[in-house]
Amino acid sequence: MALIVQKYGGTSVGNAERIRNVARRIAHFHRDGHQLVVVVSAMAGETNRLISLAHELSPNPNPRELDVVAASGEQVTIGLLAIALCDMGLKARSYTGGQVPVLTDNAFTKARILQIDEQRMREDLADGAVVIVAGFQGVDADGNITTLGRGGSDTSGVALAAALQADECQIYTDVDGVYTADPRIVPQARRLERITFEEMLELASQGSKVLQIRSVEFAGKYKVNLRVLSSFDDPESTPKGTLITFEEEDDMEQAIISGIAFNRDEAKISLMGVEDRPGIAYSIVGPVAEANIDVDMIVQNIGASGHTDFSFTVHRNEYQKALSVLAQSKDKHFKAREIIGDDKICKVSVVGIGMRSHVGLAARMFKALADVGINIQMISTSEIKIAVVIDEKYLELAVRELHKTFELETAQQPG
Amino acid sequence: MALIVQKYGGTSVGNAERIRNVARRIAHFHRDGHQLVVVVSAMAGETNRLISLAHELSPNPNPRELDVVAASGEQVTIGLLAIALCDMGLKARSYTGGQVPVLTDNAFTKARILQIDEQRMREDLADGAVVIVAGFQGVDADGNITTLGRGGSDTSGVALAAALQADECQIYTDVDGVYTADPRIVPQARRLERITFEEMLELASQGSKVLQIRSVEFAGKYKVNLRVLSSFDDPESTPKGTLITFEEEDDMEQAIISGIAFNRDEAKISLMGVEDRPGIAYSIVGPVAEANIDVDMIVQNIGASGHTDFSFTVHRNEYQKALSVLAQSKDKHFKAREIIGDDKICKVSVVGIGMRSHVGLAARMFKALADVGINIQMISTSEIKIAVVIDEKYLELAVRELHKTFELETAQQPG
Repeated sequence: MALIVQKYGGTSVGNAERIRNVARRIAHFHRDGHQLVVVVSAMAGETNRLISLAHELSPNPNPRELDVVAASGEQVTIGLLAIALCDMGLKARSYTGGQVPVLTDNAFTKARILQIDEQRMREDLADGAVVIVAGFQGVDADGNITTLGRGGSDTSGVALAAALQADECQIYTDVDGVYTADPRIVPQARRLERITFEEMLELASQGSKVLQIRSVEFAGKYKVNLRVLSSFDDPESTPKGTLITFEEEDDMEQAIISGIAFNRDEAKISLMGVEDRPGIAYSIVGPVAEANIDVDMIVQNIGASGHTDFSFTVHRNEYQKALSVLAQSKDKHFKAREIIGDDKICKVSVVGIGMRSHVGLAARMFKALADVGINIQMISTSEIKIAVVIDEKYLELAVRELHKTFELETAQQPG
Repeated sequence: MALIVQKYGGTSVGNAERIRNVARRIAHFHRDGHQLVVVVSAMAGETNRLISLAHELSPNPNPRELDVVAASGEQVTIGLLAIALCDMGLKARSYTGGQVPVLTDNAFTKARILQIDEQRMREDLADGAVVIVAGFQGVDADGNITTLGRGGSDTSGVALAAALQADECQIYTDVDGVYTADPRIVPQARRLERITFEEMLELASQGSKVLQIRSVEFAGKYKVNLRVLSSFDDPESTPKGTLITFEEEDDMEQAIISGIAFNRDEAKISLMGVEDRPGIAYSIVGPVAEANIDVDMIVQNIGASGHTDFSFTVHRNEYQKALSVLAQSKDKHFKAREIIGDDKICKVSVVGIGMRSHVGLAARMFKALADVGINIQMISTSEIKIAVVIDEKYLELAVRELHKTFELETAQQPG
């Protein structure tokens, strides 16, 4: 008998029929003798609908009140799922974030979980009941409703698994695991049976939308066994998915490259001919960060004659805002010959824990792109990742070529 | 400066534009220096949508979980209204029933309010904030979400006004007050400037859908000044409506009859030739009540030769259920020659506090109906009401004739 936390996303609970399917899967695990805590998102489209309503009333909705509105979406789903389970003759009890309670800080719309009281859940589990918890939400020390920000239901699931010391946290989604690349772009892409946390972090942050990055960090921190599965498989079957592990297993055949990730949501900004002096990076990026714009890749080349070029990427939605921040701080905080930008770019990354012990992978990547005539605009690397920025229109071509180059369609042997 | 509780129903907050109108009205009162606690229902149609979803998952949804689902509707509206007010530069804070808290018993889907903690609301009011509270909902002693049943937002409003000892509880709806009859049936119907609680109770229970009957009882019990108003009047104007008062004002011209009410939702059941013995009424009505069917009018005539006829009315939706309960208990609990019924009936009532001191009104009513050829099937009276059951097809004719007979189109003089 295991204690399993399951998390179902918005698509998995998108209508009554799908909710009933989720209930069947839960009943299947319950019959097998497992204890279950189930975290659910709002029905697909519902959070967007609620937030649109709020924006009809204010261009800048009060954050405390926006959370009150948004948190109602998950409340509907927990009740509906509990109703479906009760209808099948199971015991089930639903809890909002505030009822558990899931204590968070008071950073409305992007709160962080501080503590979870597992007392009520333990009592219900001991009573043979399935516990259903609203994802994405919590309550601050003053009893105000908070939300964890978009995609926060994954984080809720992992945090509950950590608090309950669950044997496994299963994240059900509309894909049946983590793939070597997006199967919509690379039909030969292969499901990975396991992947390390570090690789998963890079894949998630590089644009693989399977898991929200915070939930992966959380799972790594609290050593929660995380498994990504499809909620559309037969509810009565034993699910497979991809297990996200803590450690490289030395006795296993270790793949050099786990997968290819991409991100189309970025825009590039370059400052040409800025002074090459200490503090120049901060004087450029500082005002951007103060305007709450996340900066992703940053590249600065070695300068000549006291000047250099400085480039970075931001989310495409914040491209115009970033440009106007720079226009305001130019000549005040720094000088630049020219500020240019491009929001028709994308980022493609090659990720793999085996990269650490293998040389020549970057060269292989660059050659593969050159062979099909793709120009590389920016490069950034980490221990287990090489990322390049290229023209948006080459995205699919680049991903497919790299998938082929690193032979990801078949399980690799260490080179 | 007054402390005013305002309640807005689902139609008044049915979309973003209407919510903004409600916010304008609140801002108008706030500018005039009043303290405001605002109770809102779910957006029109939303509660039905949520309950339909629940019924898609179970013919008989678990009541605790149904309340979790249903209570989300008001949570959306309180947040949206607070967002609209904040956008106008006002301070506003929203609370769910559980956050106030509005403590109820644990009778899910039809809970009763036990106690309201007004501490947080008082602090917000002292801080100059508008307080917005979700109607229709509360929380039981174990922290479970409860709802008060359909229309319960009126009760929430009155209960909050009682707890806060508010100067007035304003119920905003889609009509601008209580009329002498439904204006859709009687174009000459006149808005009453004031009406007593007793008359309002009779009118509400007789089918005038303006206010939920429980809220009127509540207001009477706690001596809350209740005013019914339209939320569609100009938000910047001073609203009129109908004031519901505690006492007859002797120095005022007292109308004999306040209004004509009707109810088309009833069905009639008659048991012919039952034994005329002590306990017979209980042996008939007992099993019906045990099946949770509300019985409205009951009429039993004096019998002859040891037998009598016994008639009562139930809600039309429960007509078939009541008939089958009677079929089962017949011969077991009582004997009857025949059980007959009719669900094509309606009830029409004449209501007025002045009735107490005036004789001959019943005769005047019966004559008016006879003059247009309407047969009376059942009669029931109270101190301030005469109700008759007639064929459904005569409803409009009867209401119009009685309105004319009692000269309700003009303010009456005591006769």
